[in-house]
Amino acid sequence: MKIGMIGLGKMGGNMRERLRRAGHEVVGFDLDESLRDVASLEELVAALEPPRLVWVMVPHGKPTRSTVEQLGELLSEGDLVVEGGNSKFTEDVELDALLAPKGIGYVDCGVSGGIWGLDNGYGLMCGGRPEHVEIAMPIFDALRPEGPREEGFVHAGDVGAGHYAKMVHNGIEYGLMHAYAEGYELLSAKDIVKDVKGCFQAWSRGTVVRSWLLDLLVKALDERPGLEDISEYTTDSGEGRWTVEEAINMAVPMPVISAALFARFASRQENSPAMQAVAALRGQFGGHAVKL
Amino acid sequence: MKIGMIGLGKMGGNMRERLRRAGHEVVGFDLDESLRDVASLEELVAALEPPRLVWVMVPHGKPTRSTVEQLGELLSEGDLVVEGGNSKFTEDVELDALLAPKGIGYVDCGVSGGIWGLDNGYGLMCGGRPEHVEIAMPIFDALRPEGPREEGFVHAGDVGAGHYAKMVHNGIEYGLMHAYAEGYELLSAKDIVKDVKGCFQAWSRGTVVRSWLLDLLVKALDERPGLEDISEYTTDSGEGRWTVEEAINMAVPMPVISAALFARFASRQENSPAMQAVAALRGQFGGHAVKL
Amino acid sequence: MKIGMIGLGKMGGNMRERLRRAGHEVVGFDLDESLRDVASLEELVAALEPPRLVWVMVPHGKPTRSTVEQLGELLSEGDLVVEGGNSKFTEDVELDALLAPKGIGYVDCGVSGGIWGLDNGYGLMCGGRPEHVEIAMPIFDALRPEGPREEGFVHAGDVGAGHYAKMVHNGIEYGLMHAYAEGYELLSAKDIVKDVKGCFQAWSRGTVVRSWLLDLLVKALDERPGLEDISEYTTDSGEGRWTVEEAINMAVPMPVISAALFARFASRQENSPAMQAVAALRGQFGGHAVKL
Amino acid sequence: MKIGMIGLGKMGGNMRERLRRAGHEVVGFDLDESLRDVASLEELVAALEPPRLVWVMVPHGKPTRSTVEQLGELLSEGDLVVEGGNSKFTEDVELDALLAPKGIGYVDCGVSGGIWGLDNGYGLMCGGRPEHVEIAMPIFDALRPEGPREEGFVHAGDVGAGHYAKMVHNGIEYGLMHAYAEGYELLSAKDIVKDVKGCFQAWSRGTVVRSWLLDLLVKALDERPGLEDISEYTTDSGEGRWTVEEAINMAVPMPVISAALFARFASRQENSPAMQAVAALRGQFGGHAVKL
Repeated sequence: MKIGMIGLGKMGGNMRERLRRAGHEVVGFDLDESLRDVASLEELVAALEPPRLVWVMVPHGKPTRSTVEQLGELLSEGDLVVEGGNSKFTEDVELDALLAPKGIGYVDCGVSGGIWGLDNGYGLMCGGRPEHVEIAMPIFDALRPEGPREEGFVHAGDVGAGHYAKMVHNGIEYGLMHAYAEGYELLSAKDIVKDVKGCFQAWSRGTVVRSWLLDLLVKALDERPGLEDISEYTTDSGEGRWTVEEAINMAVPMPVISAALFARFASRQENSPAMQAVAALRGQFGGHAVKL
Repeated sequence: MKIGMIGLGKMGGNMRERLRRAGHEVVGFDLDESLRDVASLEELVAALEPPRLVWVMVPHGKPTRSTVEQLGELLSEGDLVVEGGNSKFTEDVELDALLAPKGIGYVDCGVSGGIWGLDNGYGLMCGGRPEHVEIAMPIFDALRPEGPREEGFVHAGDVGAGHYAKMVHNGIEYGLMHAYAEGYELLSAKDIVKDVKGCFQAWSRGTVVRSWLLDLLVKALDERPGLEDISEYTTDSGEGRWTVEEAINMAVPMPVISAALFARFASRQENSPAMQAVAALRGQFGGHAVKL
Repeated sequence: MKIGMIGLGKMGGNMRERLRRAGHEVVGFDLDESLRDVASLEELVAALEPPRLVWVMVPHGKPTRSTVEQLGELLSEGDLVVEGGNSKFTEDVELDALLAPKGIGYVDCGVSGGIWGLDNGYGLMCGGRPEHVEIAMPIFDALRPEGPREEGFVHAGDVGAGHYAKMVHNGIEYGLMHAYAEGYELLSAKDIVKDVKGCFQAWSRGTVVRSWLLDLLVKALDERPGLEDISEYTTDSGEGRWTVEEAINMAVPMPVISAALFARFASRQENSPAMQAVAALRGQFGGHAVKL
Repeated sequence: MKIGMIGLGKMGGNMRERLRRAGHEVVGFDLDESLRDVASLEELVAALEPPRLVWVMVPHGKPTRSTVEQLGELLSEGDLVVEGGNSKFTEDVELDALLAPKGIGYVDCGVSGGIWGLDNGYGLMCGGRPEHVEIAMPIFDALRPEGPREEGFVHAGDVGAGHYAKMVHNGIEYGLMHAYAEGYELLSAKDIVKDVKGCFQAWSRGTVVRSWLLDLLVKALDERPGLEDISEYTTDSGEGRWTVEEAINMAVPMPVISAALFARFASRQENSPAMQAVAALRGQFGGHAVKL
C-alpha cells in the first residue's frame, strides 16, 4: 500500500521504516530536508494516487491543525487523514468537522511504543467511522506488534476515541510508574534490605507485579544501582494532565493518577510555596523554629 | 488548689504561670535548676498534701514513662497523676495499668494552645474515670480559655481518649494548614492576582474559611509578603503520623490528612528517590532526556 | 447610592435587603414577578441615572452571558457592570472584552457568606480596573461585614482576579471541610472515645483548629449527634473542580483539595466502577472470593 | 531433598505438589486430616533426617508463632525453619530470636504467585543468614519459575527482609491495580468510547502499560464486559496496610499506594461518615439541601 507520512522525527521516522520493512511504500515529508522524501505537502499529495492515505505525525496543537488545514485544501473527496500524533480528543472532533464537508475522512490514532516500537511494533488505538478505519487497516497491521490484531490494535469508538484511549493509557502509565517508584523508595530506605535491585528483578516472573515497566526499572537499576546522578526532575507531556482534567469533567474519582501527576509537578520545584506556607503557619502558632 | 507540675519548659512553664495567675499554688520541678521550685520529685511529693495532684508535662516516650514510674513509687493511694504531655493513647493505657494497682488515679490530657495558651487559655481534652477527672476540674478550669467549659474542655472518654482526641485534633490541623497552603500557592502562581495577602485577609470575616489559622497566615504574610526566606522544610511531631496509622488501623479512609503528612516528608528531601525512579523509567522507555 | 440588581434569588434577594438596610436605593429585576421591582432590564436601566451601576447576580454560564450582552445594548459609556455571580474567571475576561469597546466598565466580584451574609455581611473579592472598583466601593462597603475594609474585601487584581480568588476560597473550603470530616470519622470509629461532639466543641476556643466551620460542625452534631439520617451524597458547585483544573494548568501540586473533590464524586456512586475492577482483578489472580 | 511442610491449604498444598513434581520428597502436616501425610508435628519431625528443613505455611500471627514455638521444642541444632507465610517482618525478627539460641536457623520467605504458582512457579523473596539461605536453595529453585534464578528469587537481606520485600511487592500491587481501575472507570464513563475491553486488550503488546495484571483485567472483562454483578466491596490482607505504616515510619511519601488502600476501605462502607460530615456542614452554611 502507498501512504504519505508527514513528520519524520523520532516517532514518524521509525514508523516510516517499520512500514517500509513490511513492504509498504511511504512518501515522507518533514521540515527537516535531510529526513524527507519530498519537498512539500503538494509534492507528497501529488505522489499518491486517489483514494489517498496521509498519516500526520507532527507536534500537537498548532502544527497539527495547520497541517490538517493544508491537507483539507490539497486532498480530495474519498481521501483519508490519520492523525497519529498526540492531539487531544477534543481537537480530533474539530479537525474531523473541518474535513468532513469536503468528503475527506478522518481517523485519530493514538500510538504507543516509544523508541522500542520500530522493532517491537506500536500499540495502536484509533477512533473514527468504521469505513475509514477499514481503509487504513493494512497500515495498522504493519505498525502494530506481531500476534493477534486485537492485542495491539483497537477501534475504540467514534472520532476522538483513539486519542482518548491513548490519553487514558498514559494516565495509567503515570500511576503504574509511581507505584513502582514508591516501592523503590521504601525498599531503599530500609536497612535490613540489602539488595533492592534484586528484589525488583525477582518479581520478573511468577509475581503479580511483573510487567514491562518492571523490566525497565530492573534495567535502570542495573545501569545505576542507586539511581546515582539521576535528577528527580520529571516533566509531563500533557496526557497525564488531560486524564485528570477529564476525570474532573466526568466526576470520576482519580486519586492515584492525580497523585502521580502532582508528584511530577513537585519534582520541578526548588522550594514548595505550599510548604513554605505550612512552615510559616507553624512558626506563627507553635514557636516552631522556621528554618531559614 | 495545690498541684505539682513536672516539666517547666515552653508549655509547662507557661501553664504554671497561668495556674498561679488563677490563684492556684504550683510546686514545679524541672531538670533545669533555673526553672524549678524544688530540687527533686521526692521534694515535690513531700510539698503536697494527700490526696495529691501531680501534672506531668515532660517529653513523651521514655521521659514520661520514667517520671510516671517514679511517681508510682512516691505517691499513695488516692493520689492522681495527670499526663498532660504528648503521650500516644496506647501509652496511657500502659501507664494507667502501672498506677492502678496502687490505687493511684490516672488522667490523660491533651493540651492545645502553643505559645498563645498563657494568655488565651489552653484547649483541653482528657480521658479517664469520671471521679478522677472531677478531682482535677479546678485545674482544668483555670487552664482552659474563658467562656463555657464545654468550649475549651472535654472529658472525651476512657483512659487514652484525651490524647486520642488531641492526636486527631493535630491530624485535622495538618489537613487545614495544607488546604490553606495549596490555595496560597495557586493564588501566588496566577498572574492576574496582584494581592495574595489581601485575598487571605479579605476572608477574615464573613466567609466560610475564616479561622484562627487564616488569621495567622495573614500575619505571616504581613511579615513576609512572599514568605521570603522561609524554607519549605517542615518537621512533624508525631501526632500526624499516629493519626494516619490509626486511620489504617481502623480502616478509615484518610486521603486529606495523609496527603498533608506526606507533603511534609517530601519537604525534607533534597532529591526524591521515587521521582528519580520515575525519571529513570521515562529515560528507559521514551528516550526522554534524564536531567543529570 | 442607587444601584440596579439583576437576580433576586437566595443570594441576590438578601443582598438587596442588606443594601437597603444600609440606606442604598436598589432597583431589582428577576424573572420571578413576585420578587422584582421592575418588569424588564429596560425598565431597570431607565430607573437609574448615568453613570449607572448594575449588579448581576444570576446563574453562571448562559444566563450571566445573556444578561451582560443585553446590558451591553442598554447601558452607555461610563456605566459599570458588577458580575457578582459564580462566573469562571475566564468568562470574566470575555465579558469585559464585550463591554470595553462600548466604554462600559466591568468588575467581577466573588461573594462569600451564604445564608448568613444578610446579617453578618459578605466576604467580597473583586477584580478589575482601579477606577471601576472605586465607583462601586460604597456598595462593597455596605455588603461586606463590619470592621476594617480589608478584613472583608479585597481588590485582588485584574479582571477575573475576583472570581479567581473566590474559586480558590471555595477550593480551600473543600479541603478544610474534609479535614474536619476525616477527624470526625476517626473519632467516631474509636471505642474509647465516648463524646465525639464534645471533642469538637472543646476545640472552639484556645486550639489551633478553631474556625467558623468547626462551630458549624458542632451545631450540626448538636442537632444530630451521630449525623443520623444524613446521606453521604454530596454535590459540588463547580469552583472546586475549577480550582483543581487550574492547579493542573499552573502545575501546582494540589493533593489535599483534589482528594476532597474526588471524595465528593465517590459519595455519589452506588458502586465504584474502579473498585469493581480491583475486585475483579483480585478474583482473577488470587482466587479471592468476589462478592456478588 | 526431603522437606517438611506445615500448612497444606490453597498455597501450601500447591507448593507441596510443585515440589513433588520436581522430585523432592515432602512430608506434609495440616490440621485437616484429609490433606496431611502425618498426624502431628512430632511425626513430621521424626520423618525427617537431620539437618532437617521445615517450611511453615500457616496463617500469620498466632498460628505461625505457635507453630514455630513448637518447632523450637522439636527441632535440633543445625535444623532450619523457613517461614513462608505472610508474617510481618517484625515478627520474623522475634521468631528468629526464639530459635537462634537453640542453634536452629530461620529464613523468612515471601511467596507470590497465588493460584497460578503451581504451574508457573512462585516469586520468592527471602531474608536470613547466607548459610541458611544456601541450605534451602534446592527448594527455592524448585518453587520459583523456570529461567534465571535471579528473575524469580532474591536473597533480599537480613532476617525479615524477605517478608519486607513481599510486603512492598503487595503495596505496589495495590497501586498498580488501582491505576488500571481508574483508567477503566474513565474509559467506561466516556460516551465516544465504544469498546473498553478492546482498549485494554490492545495494550497487551507494544505499549508501556503491558503487564500480567493487564492481561488479567482483559480476562475479567472477557468474562463480564461491564463487570456486571461484581461488587465494589474489596478486602485487604494486611500487607497494604503494613506498607503504608512503614512509609510513615520511614518518612517516605506514599500518596499512590495509600490512595489505593483508602479506596479499599471506602469500598466497604455503606455510608461514609466523613462525607456525612461534609454534607452536614454544607447544610449548615449554605442552605444546601441535605439528602435524607
